Amino acid sequence: MSALLDTVARIRAEVCALHSELTRYGLVVWTAGNVSARVPGHDLMVIKPSGVSYDALAPGLMVVTDLHGVPVSGDETAGEWGNPDLSPSSDTAAHAYVYRNMPDVGGVVHTHSTYATAWAARGEEIPCVLTMMGDEFGGTIPIGPFALIGDDSIGQGIVETLKNSNSPAVLMQNHGPFTIGKNPREAVKAAVMCEEVARTVHIARQLGEPLPIDQAKIDSLHDRYQNVYGR
Amino acid sequence: MSALLDTVARIRAEVCALHSELTRYGLVVWTAGNVSARVPGHDLMVIKPSGVSYDALAPGLMVVTDLHGVPVSGDETAGEWGNPDLSPSSDTAAHAYVYRNMPDVGGVVHTHSTYATAWAARGEEIPCVLTMMGDEFGGTIPIGPFALIGDDSIGQGIVETLKNSNSPAVLMQNHGPFTIGKNPREAVKAAVMCEEVARTVHIARQLGEPLPIDQAKIDSLHDRYQNVYGR
Amino acid sequence: MSALLDTVARIRAEVCALHSELTRYGLVVWTAGNVSARVPGHDLMVIKPSGVSYDALAPGLMVVTDLHGVPVSGDETAGEWGNPDLSPSSDTAAHAYVYRNMPDVGGVVHTHSTYATAWAARGEEIPCVLTMMGDEFGGTIPIGPFALIGDDSIGQGIVETLKNSNSPAVLMQNHGPFTIGKNPREAVKAAVMCEEVARTVHIARQLGEPLPIDQAKIDSLHDRYQNVYGR
Amino acid sequence: MSALLDTVARIRAEVCALHSELTRYGLVVWTAGNVSARVPGHDLMVIKPSGVSYDALAPGLMVVTDLHGVPVSGDETAGEWGNPDLSPSSDTAAHAYVYRNMPDVGGVVHTHSTYATAWAARGEEIPCVLTMMGDEFGGTIPIGPFALIGDDSIGQGIVETLKNSNSPAVLMQNHGPFTIGKNPREAVKAAVMCEEVARTVHIARQLGEPLPIDQAKIDSLHDRYQNVYGR
Repeated sequence: MSALLDTVARIRAEVCALHSELTRYGLVVWTAGNVSARVPGHDLMVIKPSGVSYDALAPGLMVVTDLHGVPVSGDETAGEWGNPDLSPSSDTAAHAYVYRNMPDVGGVVHTHSTYATAWAARGEEIPCVLTMMGDEFGGTIPIGPFALIGDDSIGQGIVETLKNSNSPAVLMQNHGPFTIGKNPREAVKAAVMCEEVARTVHIARQLGEPLPIDQAKIDSLHDRYQNVYGR
Repeated sequence: MSALLDTVARIRAEVCALHSELTRYGLVVWTAGNVSARVPGHDLMVIKPSGVSYDALAPGLMVVTDLHGVPVSGDETAGEWGNPDLSPSSDTAAHAYVYRNMPDVGGVVHTHSTYATAWAARGEEIPCVLTMMGDEFGGTIPIGPFALIGDDSIGQGIVETLKNSNSPAVLMQNHGPFTIGKNPREAVKAAVMCEEVARTVHIARQLGEPLPIDQAKIDSLHDRYQNVYGR
Repeated sequence: MSALLDTVARIRAEVCALHSELTRYGLVVWTAGNVSARVPGHDLMVIKPSGVSYDALAPGLMVVTDLHGVPVSGDETAGEWGNPDLSPSSDTAAHAYVYRNMPDVGGVVHTHSTYATAWAARGEEIPCVLTMMGDEFGGTIPIGPFALIGDDSIGQGIVETLKNSNSPAVLMQNHGPFTIGKNPREAVKAAVMCEEVARTVHIARQLGEPLPIDQAKIDSLHDRYQNVYGR
Repeated sequence: MSALLDTVARIRAEVCALHSELTRYGLVVWTAGNVSARVPGHDLMVIKPSGVSYDALAPGLMVVTDLHGVPVSGDETAGEWGNPDLSPSSDTAAHAYVYRNMPDVGGVVHTHSTYATAWAARGEEIPCVLTMMGDEFGGTIPIGPFALIGDDSIGQGIVETLKNSNSPAVLMQNHGPFTIGKNPREAVKAAVMCEEVARTVHIARQLGEPLPIDQAKIDSLHDRYQNVYGR
């Protein structure tokens, strides 16, 4: 049990710190974005509390839940991990569904980053016309279905879209991006890169059509970046 | 009387601090934006002084006025709340009109934030094509009339537009956004979210038409966010 | 002479500090923008040194020149105002021409701020479609002629354009904005507001035509802002 | 040998520090950009380590390689310059090819800066329609060929494009800009200016066609800036 306590403490600190990457890269305003991490080997996850501003985050405020998004305490002594005044992010159900259904995923990020959300508003996938997009996404960034918050619809849309894609990012229609990674840092990186390519390809298309890249070359870039290059 | 002094001191500190959210999110340049708050239970409001840069703001510089925008001192001893050298913001009349005519409003914000003002320059309301816009605004962000500064025209335009809308934001034609809230922090949040959705929907529309969201789904999002979700 | 020494010291400090407004508002990159001030009552001006980055500016590095741009020392003892290793900004001739020919001008600013320069690249004046533009500029922001650096061509283009305009800003064709003010702070404010309206009107026009404002209303806004409002 | 040790230490510190200009001007996200410098008089170069975030850079982490990109240690005693755990940037081969084939080049920079990369995605050179572009680039910023990472293709594309151009910047198709300079600071300046002109000309073209500048005038600007003006 002590090892689990240490692990949860470490993950809470990491999840807390990763939110500063969302603000650094301008992916979020007010409280509208969140990072979570799986607790490896346990049916637990750690996620941002709801409605707390990024400036006010601290490791001890990160909420620990089971993989159905129900907050849990560490043991019978009250409140070891619990924060009675804090709820987990309103997006917790979507994160939890991903962890339940994609066992290799160790981190999930959700934002409304501007350019990615603009593609999502049109329901238009982002074509792979940049070498850095080949590296990171291995092809287009796909669109997920329109889904209302409140049940598993969003989580299902994420999982069904990503399980058929190289991409660690999905743009949920009219909503915004969700990204996954083997750990929360990789999911944050995917969120940062998703917005960057969403922005660059948008700007490229404002004045004409970007030149396509052959899928064989995209595959070569992606394979090298993910394997040879050691990521 | 002592309780009122404490209340005014607290509100001055809060109004002063909230201006840093306007600069943090890039909603204002130079001195062109202001936050105000009602003093609950009194016909008083607190507002930014005119022409003072955001770096130089301090709680004691916030101007206390009546609900017609006339500066008041705390008591007969001179200058308790007054700053003889400072005038209230040149937009004070508009804020004051809102407080006189919308008794549930506890905070008002005015900016010329870029994308919201661009929609205002075309006199075009922002369509509700994002789930976060459904949450916060419950539909389109409406346009208010063109009105010159100097009398109650701007205030009337704000009130007449907002009283028929779910939205806490109105885009005054050729001018810029005004937002309201039950307290000044909520009004600032609305100003931040207004610019964010103005920007995202603008960018979405640059390359095509965003997909509409059914009003029933917008109502569901708004109702959940305002009620079930506890905001 | 001692009073002049004090005055020059004060102006050097002010000119130095005002450059931080150019970086704060993103009007300049690298070393590509400069502020100058007239030394009132003397045929002297103070301007940024050439090629020094904004981080490295200090009051004592500001260069003092006569109104033909020739560096001067304060007295016979060498180097009181002079910096033997520093040249005045390569744009000094244009600033100096303005001071020689517009006696009410106390400050001049030059930048290549992005949106203002984009209008300049098309040789297209910015129409007055925002109330804040009526306040500050009293009408359109005009275009000045294409002029090469190296003689008085740029200065002449600035003066000939601005003397027939309410605007304190001119967009020199294919080059960028120059702004003037009764003092250097007002010239910096004009540079900040010029970029802000250049950006906002650009964005408004990307999706349609902004609604015009009658010139009578623009005159009313400008008159109030410049006179009644006490600027 | 001691002089070389001192030189390498100085260059590592300079290369490390110059990366902060890439983040200051928003040219890079995550770890996607790098600066290198030649060690003058030696077949050595210094470059950013692979996969290290900009916040974590320190002079001692900069990797020293030969001009084929192979990491070297300073002497027989292990690890004087080497970092056994760090690899040089994945773009090292391209930098090294430039140093081998352009003996006057002392610094190379690679980014995926947004607007420059957008032009690269369309394979469209940037026309010279700004005086600051005449100064710095002496004409258009050219496009280099599409090239996959993994051999000398990228380096060859850079060299073949730049040896026929005034420009210190090349936009590699679907990839992003590479810039060169007589020293690494000049290469960084070219990267900053490349993004600035890419952005400004993009924005100018969004609402019409920029006015061309005669090549004779561009030549005059470039000659003055590079020679008379003393750069």
